[in-house]
Amino acid sequence: MNPMLVDVMRGDHLESQHAGAVYVVDDRGTELLSIGDVNALLFPRSAIKIMQALPLVESGAAKKYDLNNRQLALVCSSHNGEPAHTQTAESILRAATLSASLLECGAHMPYHKASEYQLVRSNQAPCALHNNCSGKHSGMLAFAAHQGFELFNYIDLQHPVQQTIADVISDLTEFDIQSAPCAKDGCSVPTWAAPLKSWAQALAKISRGKGLGESRKNAFASLQQAVMAEPFYVAGTDRYCTNSMAKLSTPLFIKTGAEGVFCATLPEHGIGITLKCSDGSTRGAEMMLSATLKKLGLLKDNDQAVLDQMLNITLKNCNDFAVAQIKPASFWGF
Amino acid sequence: MNPMLVDVMRGDHLESQHAGAVYVVDDRGTELLSIGDVNALLFPRSAIKIMQALPLVESGAAKKYDLNNRQLALVCSSHNGEPAHTQTAESILRAATLSASLLECGAHMPYHKASEYQLVRSNQAPCALHNNCSGKHSGMLAFAAHQGFELFNYIDLQHPVQQTIADVISDLTEFDIQSAPCAKDGCSVPTWAAPLKSWAQALAKISRGKGLGESRKNAFASLQQAVMAEPFYVAGTDRYCTNSMAKLSTPLFIKTGAEGVFCATLPEHGIGITLKCSDGSTRGAEMMLSATLKKLGLLKDNDQAVLDQMLNITLKNCNDFAVAQIKPASFWGF
Repeated sequence: MNPMLVDVMRGDHLESQHAGAVYVVDDRGTELLSIGDVNALLFPRSAIKIMQALPLVESGAAKKYDLNNRQLALVCSSHNGEPAHTQTAESILRAATLSASLLECGAHMPYHKASEYQLVRSNQAPCALHNNCSGKHSGMLAFAAHQGFELFNYIDLQHPVQQTIADVISDLTEFDIQSAPCAKDGCSVPTWAAPLKSWAQALAKISRGKGLGESRKNAFASLQQAVMAEPFYVAGTDRYCTNSMAKLSTPLFIKTGAEGVFCATLPEHGIGITLKCSDGSTRGAEMMLSATLKKLGLLKDNDQAVLDQMLNITLKNCNDFAVAQIKPASFWGF
Repeated sequence: MNPMLVDVMRGDHLESQHAGAVYVVDDRGTELLSIGDVNALLFPRSAIKIMQALPLVESGAAKKYDLNNRQLALVCSSHNGEPAHTQTAESILRAATLSASLLECGAHMPYHKASEYQLVRSNQAPCALHNNCSGKHSGMLAFAAHQGFELFNYIDLQHPVQQTIADVISDLTEFDIQSAPCAKDGCSVPTWAAPLKSWAQALAKISRGKGLGESRKNAFASLQQAVMAEPFYVAGTDRYCTNSMAKLSTPLFIKTGAEGVFCATLPEHGIGITLKCSDGSTRGAEMMLSATLKKLGLLKDNDQAVLDQMLNITLKNCNDFAVAQIKPASFWGF
């Protein structure tokens, strides 16, 4: 069983706890942190969108369609469905002369409340562009168009888009993805389960391209740079991924996935991070990543104040009283 | 550490897990189920609204104001903010010739999406009546008015409304609430932490009034009857408390609280149940209560099909594919 890593306090008393597993490794293979069952098979969900985005860049499609940092960040994103996000998804499709009607991710209301309410007020249903995965799907379609693949059913496991991604993931994780548990993600594309530590090892390779071929190294550098340069486009207003990358001056690539997953890299240090909050909660996973960053001690000195804020989250009730607090559990020894 | 009680599967593979503690006891003191750390101090949050409602009925205020089952159920509720809920809260205040402006619970959007969107479309902000605790607060105000207490600041720990409730809880739990950890709930009233098993023992007493004085026995019988007769008013559309009481023919009183708490009684059996999902998640707590009901084996034969449905929750993605499943963990031995 994974250890308790996050405490949720009400007043001065422990109310809830989150257990988790964390693995941090560098691209020389040095294990920097190993907590809990890091050999457990983990569905990384949206936390590896950078791996799913790789074929778009490596194939030359992103260059051909002249995609900019915002567009590339959106391909790696789980976005809020804010107007800037939906417009950017549309612009990716337009660059490849594709229509939004080709998107197979399904529709859901924007995560962003004001954007949700804007749709409600104008009596509009959400469309596939509002789906938090529409950037990824637009990138998959652009890649398919560039390769001359059939566009229909690009979400299917056997479609060459998904098989190309499976090969990328197998190469990076050194885990046989073809025989791994495979399930459907929220946006209907395949998600494969590999050992938690294998995902972190893959991210360490991605971080500065060590051991990768030149084109793959450059493609991952472009994608990380795009996300770090335009963090609003990888998530959005009031989101952990966006805020942490925007506020911390240390170069960091951070991406969350459903059910309490985070993948991250510290490109200057060649480090990959993967973690899972056992119960799947977002608040638990976010605090685990903040605690991991503190434990590693690699952030720049001028980032300490921001990190301290990230390590002590106060929750207010609807009368604006501070009623609860989320913080690292005693396990961390802070 | 509490054992893993709920599995969340993606495809055929375990994705997330919920740990928890459960205590079930009858009013002769016989322990029927004890899982995890049942001596841990637990904030029951909204799961004990029936105890917070007791003074309203026991004092004669409910009778004086001629409150019906729907109104009494709402006093015990964490409701969805649907029109029937807000109107019923208003009707409680009107019966005691009080104004909604006296409510000190604060405002939040209705939990019920269609009601939330109705407010957005009509450009209205939510008011205190939409707060999921407005029934409880209306009941507290009606009790205060009946007793001739000051109405202002009835949410304060030292106010006689809250002190009366503290006495009720101390009597029922046989735990010294005055020296227990005390914190502010989401709606700003005090919440006290007592051992998980003490809450279950209190609920066993409530179930058919064993060991309670005549007026308290009758008051709890009225409140349980009201909730069981009008389960829509204790929660609302698509909510676990409402659906389980409405669909199961076995008399059951079920009430959830924030951070993964459930309190329940089986009045015909003199049984009290309290459980806590360690990580605070609702999906985990709901499945733990369904599993507890199966484990006890006390539901009527014609409830088995409904219970089986409650024990196997399929989650669909926005393309309507079945992608995940919530079910009891192997711990239960089903």
